[in-house]
Amino acid sequence: MVATPQDIRTADRTDEIATGGPPETPFLLLDRARVERNIERLRARLRQLGTGLRPHVKTAKSVDVARLLFDGGTGPITVSTLREADAFASHGFTDILYAVGLAPHKLGRVVAAHRAGVDLQVLIDSVAQAEAVAAATTGSGVRIPAFIEVDCDGHRGGVRPGDPTAVRIAEVLERGGAEARGVLVHAGGSYHSRSRAELVAAAEHERASAVRVAEDLRGAGFAAPVVSVGSTPTAHAAEDLSGVTEVRAGNFVFFDLVMAGIGVCDVDDLAMSVVTTVIGHQPEKGWIITDGGWMATSRDRGTSSQPIDQGYGLVARLDGPLYPDLVMTDASQEHGTLTIREGSGAALPELPVGTQVRVLPIHACATAAQHDVYQVLQPGTRTIGSVWSRLRGW
Amino acid sequence: MVATPQDIRTADRTDEIATGGPPETPFLLLDRARVERNIERLRARLRQLGTGLRPHVKTAKSVDVARLLFDGGTGPITVSTLREADAFASHGFTDILYAVGLAPHKLGRVVAAHRAGVDLQVLIDSVAQAEAVAAATTGSGVRIPAFIEVDCDGHRGGVRPGDPTAVRIAEVLERGGAEARGVLVHAGGSYHSRSRAELVAAAEHERASAVRVAEDLRGAGFAAPVVSVGSTPTAHAAEDLSGVTEVRAGNFVFFDLVMAGIGVCDVDDLAMSVVTTVIGHQPEKGWIITDGGWMATSRDRGTSSQPIDQGYGLVARLDGPLYPDLVMTDASQEHGTLTIREGSGAALPELPVGTQVRVLPIHACATAAQHDVYQVLQPGTRTIGSVWSRLRGW
Repeated sequence: MVATPQDIRTADRTDEIATGGPPETPFLLLDRARVERNIERLRARLRQLGTGLRPHVKTAKSVDVARLLFDGGTGPITVSTLREADAFASHGFTDILYAVGLAPHKLGRVVAAHRAGVDLQVLIDSVAQAEAVAAATTGSGVRIPAFIEVDCDGHRGGVRPGDPTAVRIAEVLERGGAEARGVLVHAGGSYHSRSRAELVAAAEHERASAVRVAEDLRGAGFAAPVVSVGSTPTAHAAEDLSGVTEVRAGNFVFFDLVMAGIGVCDVDDLAMSVVTTVIGHQPEKGWIITDGGWMATSRDRGTSSQPIDQGYGLVARLDGPLYPDLVMTDASQEHGTLTIREGSGAALPELPVGTQVRVLPIHACATAAQHDVYQVLQPGTRTIGSVWSRLRGW
Repeated sequence: MVATPQDIRTADRTDEIATGGPPETPFLLLDRARVERNIERLRARLRQLGTGLRPHVKTAKSVDVARLLFDGGTGPITVSTLREADAFASHGFTDILYAVGLAPHKLGRVVAAHRAGVDLQVLIDSVAQAEAVAAATTGSGVRIPAFIEVDCDGHRGGVRPGDPTAVRIAEVLERGGAEARGVLVHAGGSYHSRSRAELVAAAEHERASAVRVAEDLRGAGFAAPVVSVGSTPTAHAAEDLSGVTEVRAGNFVFFDLVMAGIGVCDVDDLAMSVVTTVIGHQPEKGWIITDGGWMATSRDRGTSSQPIDQGYGLVARLDGPLYPDLVMTDASQEHGTLTIREGSGAALPELPVGTQVRVLPIHACATAAQHDVYQVLQPGTRTIGSVWSRLRGW
């Protein structure tokens, strides 16, 4: 069946993506047309709702993807690390919100960013952090802008709406010469929504929580001009964003099976997949084994708590369609195991050694983080037209 | 409490590792003295058992760590990707076993490695792969050495002992001019052992399965000189390795909480940890929040199926000891949540914002993969004496 390596390369790759020299499996394939469609979908929503977008670049970690968000230019962004802030700043993104609670020793890097002309905003939820920001402002002469994190659903950090700590934080900031730029909330709890109604309610609760704290601050005499909300589920569910000045979301550019499980997108919207090669079979067990393990997909099992567990991902043909009920159910470092979903009655497809398949990710942020580059399909073609690099580290 | 950024840097870091300029949290800290102790432990065992070591470099993915395994020199190694093979070959490691089932299109790179003087051995478990290896040998004139994978415990790929396919594979290889170098088995099932007796039995079963297939091959007229077995649990449990010529293991250089849970090592043997900084608290929930999320630890939850679930890792002081029953129980991309183990009755330690702690990894291979470098403690000191780079990609 397999004659020469040349035959293999030709035979197994007849339906493959045409490219100068194919990248080695496993690799990350990005469908630029779907990315653009996903971006336009959220932009259209926010235009209708009259609110700005400050996309979170922690999912894509790619300057090239960020440029698609701003029609080739730059704009306000959200980052999850100072490494991202530095890298995007060097590409002309100068309005940056660092949306992870501040470790005070990082203020040196924050001050340096401001001195380089970057409006780098930090996030805090305690008086101790506010004192550190105020002290750094005093010490440097740089008026550091800080957001006060609001906790709307008890899933992580933040000050609860109604807690007077928010006003105390603003007082400490501004008394020390720093700036209380506004409030920030992230409805992480929305990921557990199980219906459209729950998503709409989570979005409204997120909005109301942020606006409530912003009003408390304004009542105490602080301008707090920015009200920043967002998560991909709530950004796509919000029916009213009164009082909100900007929406942060990141996952929406790629989407993933967790988002499809919540009902925020269809599986067909997923813009990213991991291309792997079949390397073996265990017919008695109904297993197809590939060269794409958790090193390529990540260990994220985010759908395991959803009504439908998609394992490490759904499996699709290289040229598009899903194999019915074929799931990547197990992973070791460099091996993936594909099996038919239990009880589905579907037949295991015949995928000889050498066949290439695509695994749709459970969690795009985690899967992308396992790779250094995106192999990017040119819209309207099946050709990899460019290779986009990703950031890493802190 | 917090005065100036300078004070923070000094005050919060009095008990910190002395270094030229501290790396940004989160970062990977490697205790070289423990690495050396772990290496010597396995070497001593194998000397006693009279068997060679072919360490798996997929855990450390570091030429510097590999050199520690060979007293500063080189030696036979196991790799999980051709990228590792290429990189280690460029540093003088020329005896390399690529221990993931072969995707036939990768034979071009295998041939290229041989032409560059590297004895790169591949792994197969099907006649289709054997035909591809034979064809590549015919086409290139390079006699490619292949191992036949043996499945001893049904956990992944391989031919079952007694299955005549092994002999057929050897026939196809050697008729085509390629080499049946030997047999390879990996007792992945040993990770589920729950007692020393089970580990010893798994090791003996692994040995016997490999030797059985090697004898079948020899009975059919093939030399099959190499019998390669190994996993960190069985390597540390084997009481007899008669007939085995080499042991592969990788995790043993660092160890992790999965290995401690199996009983292969003590928690005190763990050589690697992730240093993170406290960024907040939710006192009502008993949460301490850090800047080290799953991007720093990986999503691996390998102890969740063990008797004691260690979450995303145990938490230790920067200068060594564990905080009693403090566990990293939740993770988002750049946030970790530390809580007291349910039912333990331990008190939540007071860790102010800015405190740095170490998280001991669940699965060293997965945690290390999230980082580009190791910050290496010089033995006998608390100084980071060197920075070692890691490999990535395929």
